[in-house]
Amino acid sequence: MSNGIVAFIRRKTAMRIAESENTPGYSPGLDGVIAGETALCHVDEDEGGLRYRGYAVSDLADQATFEEVAHLLLCGTLPTRKELKEFEGRLAAEALLPAPVEAFLGMIPPAAHPMDILRTSVSLLGMIETDAEDHSHDANLRKSIRLLAQIPLVISVAHGLANGTPRMEAQPNLTFAENLLCLLTGRRGGEEWRLMAHVLDVSLTLYAEHEFNASTFAARATASTMTDLHSAVTSAIGTLKGPLHGGANEAVAEMFLEIERPDRAEGWIREQLGGKRRIMGFGHRVLKNGDSRSAIIQRHADRLSRTCRDRRWYDIALIIERVMRQEKGLCPNLDFYTAVAYLLMGIPRRLYTPIFVCSRITGWCAHVIEQQDHNRLIRPRALYKGPARESYVDIDHRR
Amino acid sequence: MSNGIVAFIRRKTAMRIAESENTPGYSPGLDGVIAGETALCHVDEDEGGLRYRGYAVSDLADQATFEEVAHLLLCGTLPTRKELKEFEGRLAAEALLPAPVEAFLGMIPPAAHPMDILRTSVSLLGMIETDAEDHSHDANLRKSIRLLAQIPLVISVAHGLANGTPRMEAQPNLTFAENLLCLLTGRRGGEEWRLMAHVLDVSLTLYAEHEFNASTFAARATASTMTDLHSAVTSAIGTLKGPLHGGANEAVAEMFLEIERPDRAEGWIREQLGGKRRIMGFGHRVLKNGDSRSAIIQRHADRLSRTCRDRRWYDIALIIERVMRQEKGLCPNLDFYTAVAYLLMGIPRRLYTPIFVCSRITGWCAHVIEQQDHNRLIRPRALYKGPARESYVDIDHRR
Repeated sequence: MSNGIVAFIRRKTAMRIAESENTPGYSPGLDGVIAGETALCHVDEDEGGLRYRGYAVSDLADQATFEEVAHLLLCGTLPTRKELKEFEGRLAAEALLPAPVEAFLGMIPPAAHPMDILRTSVSLLGMIETDAEDHSHDANLRKSIRLLAQIPLVISVAHGLANGTPRMEAQPNLTFAENLLCLLTGRRGGEEWRLMAHVLDVSLTLYAEHEFNASTFAARATASTMTDLHSAVTSAIGTLKGPLHGGANEAVAEMFLEIERPDRAEGWIREQLGGKRRIMGFGHRVLKNGDSRSAIIQRHADRLSRTCRDRRWYDIALIIERVMRQEKGLCPNLDFYTAVAYLLMGIPRRLYTPIFVCSRITGWCAHVIEQQDHNRLIRPRALYKGPARESYVDIDHRR
Repeated sequence: MSNGIVAFIRRKTAMRIAESENTPGYSPGLDGVIAGETALCHVDEDEGGLRYRGYAVSDLADQATFEEVAHLLLCGTLPTRKELKEFEGRLAAEALLPAPVEAFLGMIPPAAHPMDILRTSVSLLGMIETDAEDHSHDANLRKSIRLLAQIPLVISVAHGLANGTPRMEAQPNLTFAENLLCLLTGRRGGEEWRLMAHVLDVSLTLYAEHEFNASTFAARATASTMTDLHSAVTSAIGTLKGPLHGGANEAVAEMFLEIERPDRAEGWIREQLGGKRRIMGFGHRVLKNGDSRSAIIQRHADRLSRTCRDRRWYDIALIIERVMRQEKGLCPNLDFYTAVAYLLMGIPRRLYTPIFVCSRITGWCAHVIEQQDHNRLIRPRALYKGPARESYVDIDHRR
């Protein structure tokens, strides 16, 4: 009897093993599958919080500038005053576009997609990169800092040319976020503007890094053949372009603009839900219990709305959030209240995803450096689901 | 006693589960991990053989042209004569470069890396693509056929400009491989040339598709955000550029040229092995028991060597292969004898990886179409290996 039980357990175990050998299981989209190691970002699913190299993103958003966060991700530590000054100096010195990139930006059609322009510009920067053949840690770091300085210029020059606005130059006495706001909107100075630049700085910190998200993972897969850093960043930009990744805050802003007034919000959202249409800015593949970054940017969007004396977008957002929690049990993600802040700043909507690039370039590059410092080719397998053996048929006998 | 045994087995099982929950295991580089489904390619590790949509690659290499294989991968079936004629007509009609790409190719510095030129050109083609916003199956197929026709032109125009050679045009009465050989070497006509074009055709078929190799997987990761097909192909090109992926046949050719004469081969390879240097063209992440494609291209390289009355490279290759089998137990992969064939054809070495693109573009595009037809965002997790919680330190108190 006892032997019977043991045999039964053994048989069950053997069946399970045989089953898994015959039809190997897998997790579609690698959902929940560990694909590598990182020291850059820890995602706490329960708390909905992120840590960059051990530091809580809420502390960084409250107390550090984006330049300090970029130094943390790229160079490994929060900088001392001296290190920060040197880092800022390098960024200012690298804020130049080589002639071939200027020539390329001068010939793009006005309707070109800003992410296509960015992807092609970074690919072109890789082609003319002087450090091209050097894939060492130090060379990768130099290239990363150069890209961090160049990307805002690419965006602003392309946008300016498309709109016939006079060209802005980066100012060495402004912070990264202040320069970016200036380059993208042409505005500068004043109390309101300073708060806008601060909120933009916070949003850059919040967007900087997020473990193995799709664009970062694509960058690592590319980097894993020991190709150049620009190739990996080019992959990441093309990946971020997709509506399932980078396009969300733009889509949220479009929703707010369509709703137009707070008193229309509840009716609008209930109609959408009734029609089973997807609402952007909610839910997350990994952070299923909510995203702590959302509360941070919400607080800043609230303050900015009061300072600008324009509560329309924030009030619409509050109503949408309430109904989505009630009806779908979903929490807003980072993109939701970021859209409120960017609308108030007057940043053109088509530049929201390019701004994401200005920030995430730090995370991407840090991951590429980490990947190539301890490289292992990323080459998974597929589960074959096609026809079994087909016999070859000569072309005259095919149907 | 019997209860004791049952309890013991239960305890053991519980321990295993607890272990796997505390320190999640993973396979570095996703080695052996299934990352998705495909109907395009089946890799038989034991036989070392590949099947494209069920057809043995050996049958396709022996009996079908590369155009038929491209049709099989992209359109799903081996074409009838009528379908093949239509497919060839579409390729001929699409063999044009838009003016912005011509302008870009006209301004590239002569030292630019051919893969950087290709990556930037495809990104640029995506920027000016008229079907840009349409990601349907049919639109993706149209874009794929267009790219298949355009890529050889990009390579040949860029190479011609860099070398000041007169510009070649694609001829509608030649096959894809004949045109490619013509575009890359400027030669055309004669018995020897026809055999070269045939061997090039075979190599294009052998390189066309290989399941979830690194560049294809990067293309699928990019495509999984529902971005455009050109973004995904741009990722693939940048990934293939890396020396751990596309650069192998170029490196093999360089080894042959360095060895120079068959009587120097054995001494050279034994010296390299003694110095523990890596020999290119051997081994494979997946095909550990040998790669059946190697025997196919070896047969063709042998025949071409006899026809060209130049057995140098083939004889060197035979000696290297023998010593590598004896000393390391490693089999040559597809890149090894392909290098012999390409050397005999007089194709510039720096164009070997771009030729890989001319062929693999079919597999990449077929995978992008398959991914977007049944999409699931590719977003894995990482194992965090960084510092535990760090307390935030104000900038004036950092060291």
